[in-house]
Amino acid sequence: MIKQKGLLFILSGPSGVGKGTVRKEIFARKPDLKYSISMTTRERRKGEREGIDYYYKTREEFETLIKQNKLLEYAEYVNNYYGTPREFVEKQLTDGYDVFLEIEVQGALQVKKNFPEGVFIFLLPPSLEELKNRIMHRGTESLELVRNRLNEAKNEINMMDAYDYVVVNDDVRHAASKVQSIIQSEHLKRERVAYQYKKLLEVE
Amino acid sequence: MIKQKGLLFILSGPSGVGKGTVRKEIFARKPDLKYSISMTTRERRKGEREGIDYYYKTREEFETLIKQNKLLEYAEYVNNYYGTPREFVEKQLTDGYDVFLEIEVQGALQVKKNFPEGVFIFLLPPSLEELKNRIMHRGTESLELVRNRLNEAKNEINMMDAYDYVVVNDDVRHAASKVQSIIQSEHLKRERVAYQYKKLLEVE
Repeated sequence: MIKQKGLLFILSGPSGVGKGTVRKEIFARKPDLKYSISMTTRERRKGEREGIDYYYKTREEFETLIKQNKLLEYAEYVNNYYGTPREFVEKQLTDGYDVFLEIEVQGALQVKKNFPEGVFIFLLPPSLEELKNRIMHRGTESLELVRNRLNEAKNEINMMDAYDYVVVNDDVRHAASKVQSIIQSEHLKRERVAYQYKKLLEVE
Repeated sequence: MIKQKGLLFILSGPSGVGKGTVRKEIFARKPDLKYSISMTTRERRKGEREGIDYYYKTREEFETLIKQNKLLEYAEYVNNYYGTPREFVEKQLTDGYDVFLEIEVQGALQVKKNFPEGVFIFLLPPSLEELKNRIMHRGTESLELVRNRLNEAKNEINMMDAYDYVVVNDDVRHAASKVQSIIQSEHLKRERVAYQYKKLLEVE
């Protein structure tokens, strides 16, 4: 029995772009996809559940996992650690399931180092698109405003370079559908499928 | 005004696989896609229209076009030429439209030489999938039958190697949806989009 390994999809982008909303929309459609639950040292809030919202760890436990290289990525925000447990991701992939991460840009760049074969999707705020349309069709903005916007856009573009795909979050349903297209078409890439068939033929 | 060039999609595969049916299903969904009409020297049949079913040419005209390198690909079947006019394809791409070709494997390999930046989609008959399932789950076929099937499969796999994607035509609607996912996700590739944004920023 030949089992194809799952693929790791990483949805990331600047904060405030709506990553969580797009991720929720995708999972509301019940895709054949495992969501990787993050680990954190922050306190459990009312209504949150262990292993569903987060895996909750003490600071000592978290730092031990960092030292043991058991996190695909981690970061510290407001004195708390947040990270992605490597073991869950690798187990699911080996079992043939796709895994979906929704993380910050810095985390995504760490995952890229640890797991370059992941499929990296950059969620872009619609403002760049709007900006683009404005510059192209109007040309009436003050020079300084245009320049500031272009600088923001440039920073975003620099972050983009490590990614495989760029999706503009102009509408959460459109963006979710585009991410789903990416997930489907990645499975149709010849190098993945041909490998599977070639393995099969070696059986002869 | 920055205009993105269109993409060329080539749907191909062994004869009898159902390329035409999948193409019709895709176009029945009214995609934002131009279908490239072939050129032929065969006689116009009743009900066929110039420029809709084919462009009809004499043998001399066709051979002149071959010499002038005005065909992206061509082949001769049953004493008639069939080919893809280069000019239509290039004009549509320049104008920003995606173009869709549905052609035989030999033609696709010619297009690959003339236009390597095309997106090549191989339509695979479901029999290989079936074969795969059979070999994996049963193991009751006669050795010779299994061997013949594997040889067919091997020939198909060799043709696959020039392609970017492989779609199994198990069901025409599924296959058409998969091709549409490929079309959508190809437009989301970072190297295409980033280029567009970078061009924009040079405007500053």
